[in-house]
Amino acid sequence: MSFNTFGKFFRFTTWGESHGPAIGCVIDGCPPNIKLNIKDIQIELNKRKPGQSKFTTQRKEDDKVEILSGTFEGKTTGTPISMIIFNKDMRSKDYKNIKDKFRPGHADYTYFKKYGIRDYRGGGRQSARETASRVAAGAIAKQVLEKIIGKKYSVIGAVTQLGILGCDIEKWNDKFIANNPLFCPDKTVLKLWEKYLLGIRKAGSSCGAIIEVRARGVPVGLGAPIYSKLDMDLASAMMSINAVKGVNIGSGMNSAQLSGEQNSDEMSQKGKKTKFKSNNAGGILGGISSGQEIIVSFAVKPTSSILSQRKTINKFGKNTSISVTGRHDPCVGIRAVPIGEAMMHCVILDHYLMNKAQCGN
Amino acid sequence: MSFNTFGKFFRFTTWGESHGPAIGCVIDGCPPNIKLNIKDIQIELNKRKPGQSKFTTQRKEDDKVEILSGTFEGKTTGTPISMIIFNKDMRSKDYKNIKDKFRPGHADYTYFKKYGIRDYRGGGRQSARETASRVAAGAIAKQVLEKIIGKKYSVIGAVTQLGILGCDIEKWNDKFIANNPLFCPDKTVLKLWEKYLLGIRKAGSSCGAIIEVRARGVPVGLGAPIYSKLDMDLASAMMSINAVKGVNIGSGMNSAQLSGEQNSDEMSQKGKKTKFKSNNAGGILGGISSGQEIIVSFAVKPTSSILSQRKTINKFGKNTSISVTGRHDPCVGIRAVPIGEAMMHCVILDHYLMNKAQCGN
Amino acid sequence: MSFNTFGKFFRFTTWGESHGPAIGCVIDGCPPNIKLNIKDIQIELNKRKPGQSKFTTQRKEDDKVEILSGTFEGKTTGTPISMIIFNKDMRSKDYKNIKDKFRPGHADYTYFKKYGIRDYRGGGRQSARETASRVAAGAIAKQVLEKIIGKKYSVIGAVTQLGILGCDIEKWNDKFIANNPLFCPDKTVLKLWEKYLLGIRKAGSSCGAIIEVRARGVPVGLGAPIYSKLDMDLASAMMSINAVKGVNIGSGMNSAQLSGEQNSDEMSQKGKKTKFKSNNAGGILGGISSGQEIIVSFAVKPTSSILSQRKTINKFGKNTSISVTGRHDPCVGIRAVPIGEAMMHCVILDHYLMNKAQCGN
Amino acid sequence: MSFNTFGKFFRFTTWGESHGPAIGCVIDGCPPNIKLNIKDIQIELNKRKPGQSKFTTQRKEDDKVEILSGTFEGKTTGTPISMIIFNKDMRSKDYKNIKDKFRPGHADYTYFKKYGIRDYRGGGRQSARETASRVAAGAIAKQVLEKIIGKKYSVIGAVTQLGILGCDIEKWNDKFIANNPLFCPDKTVLKLWEKYLLGIRKAGSSCGAIIEVRARGVPVGLGAPIYSKLDMDLASAMMSINAVKGVNIGSGMNSAQLSGEQNSDEMSQKGKKTKFKSNNAGGILGGISSGQEIIVSFAVKPTSSILSQRKTINKFGKNTSISVTGRHDPCVGIRAVPIGEAMMHCVILDHYLMNKAQCGN
Repeated sequence: MSFNTFGKFFRFTTWGESHGPAIGCVIDGCPPNIKLNIKDIQIELNKRKPGQSKFTTQRKEDDKVEILSGTFEGKTTGTPISMIIFNKDMRSKDYKNIKDKFRPGHADYTYFKKYGIRDYRGGGRQSARETASRVAAGAIAKQVLEKIIGKKYSVIGAVTQLGILGCDIEKWNDKFIANNPLFCPDKTVLKLWEKYLLGIRKAGSSCGAIIEVRARGVPVGLGAPIYSKLDMDLASAMMSINAVKGVNIGSGMNSAQLSGEQNSDEMSQKGKKTKFKSNNAGGILGGISSGQEIIVSFAVKPTSSILSQRKTINKFGKNTSISVTGRHDPCVGIRAVPIGEAMMHCVILDHYLMNKAQCGN
Repeated sequence: MSFNTFGKFFRFTTWGESHGPAIGCVIDGCPPNIKLNIKDIQIELNKRKPGQSKFTTQRKEDDKVEILSGTFEGKTTGTPISMIIFNKDMRSKDYKNIKDKFRPGHADYTYFKKYGIRDYRGGGRQSARETASRVAAGAIAKQVLEKIIGKKYSVIGAVTQLGILGCDIEKWNDKFIANNPLFCPDKTVLKLWEKYLLGIRKAGSSCGAIIEVRARGVPVGLGAPIYSKLDMDLASAMMSINAVKGVNIGSGMNSAQLSGEQNSDEMSQKGKKTKFKSNNAGGILGGISSGQEIIVSFAVKPTSSILSQRKTINKFGKNTSISVTGRHDPCVGIRAVPIGEAMMHCVILDHYLMNKAQCGN
Repeated sequence: MSFNTFGKFFRFTTWGESHGPAIGCVIDGCPPNIKLNIKDIQIELNKRKPGQSKFTTQRKEDDKVEILSGTFEGKTTGTPISMIIFNKDMRSKDYKNIKDKFRPGHADYTYFKKYGIRDYRGGGRQSARETASRVAAGAIAKQVLEKIIGKKYSVIGAVTQLGILGCDIEKWNDKFIANNPLFCPDKTVLKLWEKYLLGIRKAGSSCGAIIEVRARGVPVGLGAPIYSKLDMDLASAMMSINAVKGVNIGSGMNSAQLSGEQNSDEMSQKGKKTKFKSNNAGGILGGISSGQEIIVSFAVKPTSSILSQRKTINKFGKNTSISVTGRHDPCVGIRAVPIGEAMMHCVILDHYLMNKAQCGN
Repeated sequence: MSFNTFGKFFRFTTWGESHGPAIGCVIDGCPPNIKLNIKDIQIELNKRKPGQSKFTTQRKEDDKVEILSGTFEGKTTGTPISMIIFNKDMRSKDYKNIKDKFRPGHADYTYFKKYGIRDYRGGGRQSARETASRVAAGAIAKQVLEKIIGKKYSVIGAVTQLGILGCDIEKWNDKFIANNPLFCPDKTVLKLWEKYLLGIRKAGSSCGAIIEVRARGVPVGLGAPIYSKLDMDLASAMMSINAVKGVNIGSGMNSAQLSGEQNSDEMSQKGKKTKFKSNNAGGILGGISSGQEIIVSFAVKPTSSILSQRKTINKFGKNTSISVTGRHDPCVGIRAVPIGEAMMHCVILDHYLMNKAQCGN
């Protein structure tokens, strides 16, 4: 049972509210004797942090992470790693006018109904700010996996659909993704996407997105059948990200439309290597990794904090309306890319360690 | 950590292989003093059991469940409920010819790679036969929830897409679903679906499906933020079902294409009741139930056991080909309807009990 | 969270009541490819089973265990192992007269207060009959450990105090323990113990006992610091056995009276071997195994089902008195020896697998 | 699975090393809407903190706790409560001379063997400094329970044996305990104890202790049978405290010597109240609280850091000897009193919340 903990073997517990003094996380179960490079953790955090381009919220946070425990002379010791990020650019007064109102499509209503109390400032615990902690945890998982599995291991995510605009997935380009502010994988559509998003922003509106995350070099055999399936945990991981409403593994929802012949990825052996003709399975068969690329995609709904006047109610049960000003992402999906990557690292390391316990491999 | 256990508060552990002497499950955490109606458990199992129509596998199992513990004078006692279903119509020799070969798209390969050993007969532990145990557990969860929440609580699932054929979701009809062998919700498409499926069956092929499950009467406040979100656990539950490759909550993957205005479900108050103008959220906001209908859909890929000759490898690492004869479902998605319903009951009861512990409500 | 599950990696879930149709357990997390010898499981069960000597209850149960899943061609497959033991010699009418009364010192009262319902027949779920399932699970853990660690691994338990009678612990003799019905380790006291116990039995009274369990060949490094300490889990394991009221690790409660000089076990190195001058620590330092013999002892209180008239109340809140006839152990501590051994095996295997996940060793 | 987390419903995760920048903990599962009094948390911490009398270590830590999350306008919100305590008076150079040597009776050896790396400064993660985090968590559990149960709820602990010196338990005096630096419950022995302890300190030696913790006002029905017994979790809790080697519930190890007649606590009803004639059970029957006072005692072994020259080995596997200078408690058992109280609060709140989920009470 774990309201604020993710993972079973490589576990991280996050804490903190958007407008509290700090946020952070505690990692438990990190293998010992792994050299940690703090700069590389910061690089991952920087990919997620707000205020970097005109396409995301203008809240300025340097999201500088400090490690408070769990390392000695630069290496992990097997004891819990506590990380902290202080909050800086909070404008709590921005939220005074929505203090008693519930934004439609937002967790405001359900939090209040559940707990009878909530820190409304900046979304409090519901804020996407919590995801900075995940990115920090994922950055450590990444370093552990790179040490254990080696350089063939990598994870990369991209935005494959921005609102109503798609892209040509065959044009996926790792380098291009790394060098544009929208994590767009297809050179030919970027300009259009940028225009579209600026339009949305200017209108005070918002749009959704689809993010795809790919993991390469994952060994065969990760995942436990029935209720610890790798795809189950990946779906769970991605669905835990704020605003995510759907998750696909490989062909995902589309696999309903395939025939048995189209869907089953034919296999062949070439020396010591098992080859697959296609990858509808997204690298997972029966909940266990097959050695193919693991492919997960997920949909992020549009931000609910928008300028348009919307009907809603307040905490006193009265009808009212709301229009949200302040600093918001026109598309939270964009900043979800490094979060999806982080969750992928964490799930894979979790299952890697689980497999050690299960099969000794 | 729970390879074969699902749930945190209302937990069930399943065991058993397709061609072993029996399968079963143990429920832990069932509230005491609930009158159990065994006939109603059997009714749910009958919805899932094979051999009932020409549209499913011809394996004949009466799937008769026996309760071995946890009740006294017809009521639950709060102690573990052990249920057993004996296997009857096994034809293990049907599987001799695929004993050493891996069906493409099937867990044969990954199980063998992971464990170095597997019971190949009927798919062993990978078999969808395991899901009978879930349906039994779900049937108990249902009775508990009907007692606790009352008659306004109900769950109903349907097939909303059969292979390449869709249906008009606006025509959803509970009674119609209950009375056709395909759990089709739309009267106007059933005949076409039947013809289509018989064609697939005759060809020895298979198709996928999309299943939608709706829960009504679920109180507001179920689900814990961040890593015990209700939608996270629902995604996890559905993804744990054999052959499921994608999960949507409410508008799901489609929400990527909506604008903030379209997506956020406006709210209003009428007396003591909170009303929502739409339900893109699928009844879940920030991981917590809003009191609206909870809507989950998931895609089931086509059965991998098909007649067509497919390239594959065997356990000795040699290239070969395979053509699967024997008794198989042309669309496993159909029998996934009662399984999806069962998982919905289990997740809701789980979160209902969790909420008691969290908030005392 | 696990009301009826023990363990984290090698987990077993028990179910069943004393007078229900059967009892059993499901093991999850057993490593694959281990050859299981069912005869050896039965041998362990026979050590615990009632009706074997005049010193234990006369209920006749053959406690024959059947394996229903999780093995294939004699080997474990990594899937859940379900075991069942049918109940046979139940005399439920024996319990009619205590149906509404609470035995002082027994769980009758608290079960009823907690659940508002209980199966009073034979103690229902509170019955020591549940421990048969643990012994079956422990017997499997034992076989796994013997395979993994090798023949140097062994666990042996004994009764070191029977009511008011002690023994000379220096005279501990493995073979003698295995060949007397009281698991007495000291040849010189057995006769006296037997006389004493027969006297207690004749009087319809009961006595307590102290059991000591020793594990040899346990590798250094098992146990995780702080909240997964090996001694913490051993204390937990032993305290979970019916009627246990105290647990010691090594010198245990006595260590309070030692000086720092007496208590700390001096170390020396001889070639590749680390030697300890004494073993006050009971083989565990800082929650982690040191490679020394692991020594746990625990106290079992006297059976509360006694002939003497005792004041008590009934379920209607009325004062009354009770005198328990029927078949009871004069000293439940004796049959706790194989249970303690079983729990030791389970905890050690659990931590062995945990260590794989933590440190890859 | 939880190396550094304690509890199932009210869970706290601790982190930090003795000589790192800070230590802390994250509480998950704290009920919402509880007013927290930070001064009262500090009072509990002050009871444990070092350097307060000549009887404990002279390390000077003000152990000032800060709350970083989980509260809003002075009340808990149901989100994780993160607390931090900065380390101040570290003298890492004190430890240089034992950097490569293992103190006999200490976790130095096993940590190194397990992880291959350890922060030796001040014991690193093995340090009793970790227990400050527990005391902070316990102080919050206490405030929650006082709010939920009311003023009749209280927990008090005392040292009942100091090395070879006992006391008269019948003279237990709550107020006296609160006002002497040794938490001695018996006025008549305090002077002797003080003299004895100063002698031990002067000699550079150390002694053990027995601590008894009593909880009053605990409702009947807490604890889940079989593997979530209240006494099992209490044993586990106390055994998790550094240097604890034995745990008793009620009569504990002594119950082995009682007859069935002596041991079973007779019951009677007086109006709505159930009375017990004695309390050998320590308030727990069948793992469930009976409404009586809950009594747990545990033994703390003598500090292993002593002045006397002791034989040992170093991390290179060479024989050597060690004599530990620096600031150490002559009896760590004394400061274990507030820790035992804190663990009692945490376990009771944990089971209180569990019972809500189980039985809705």
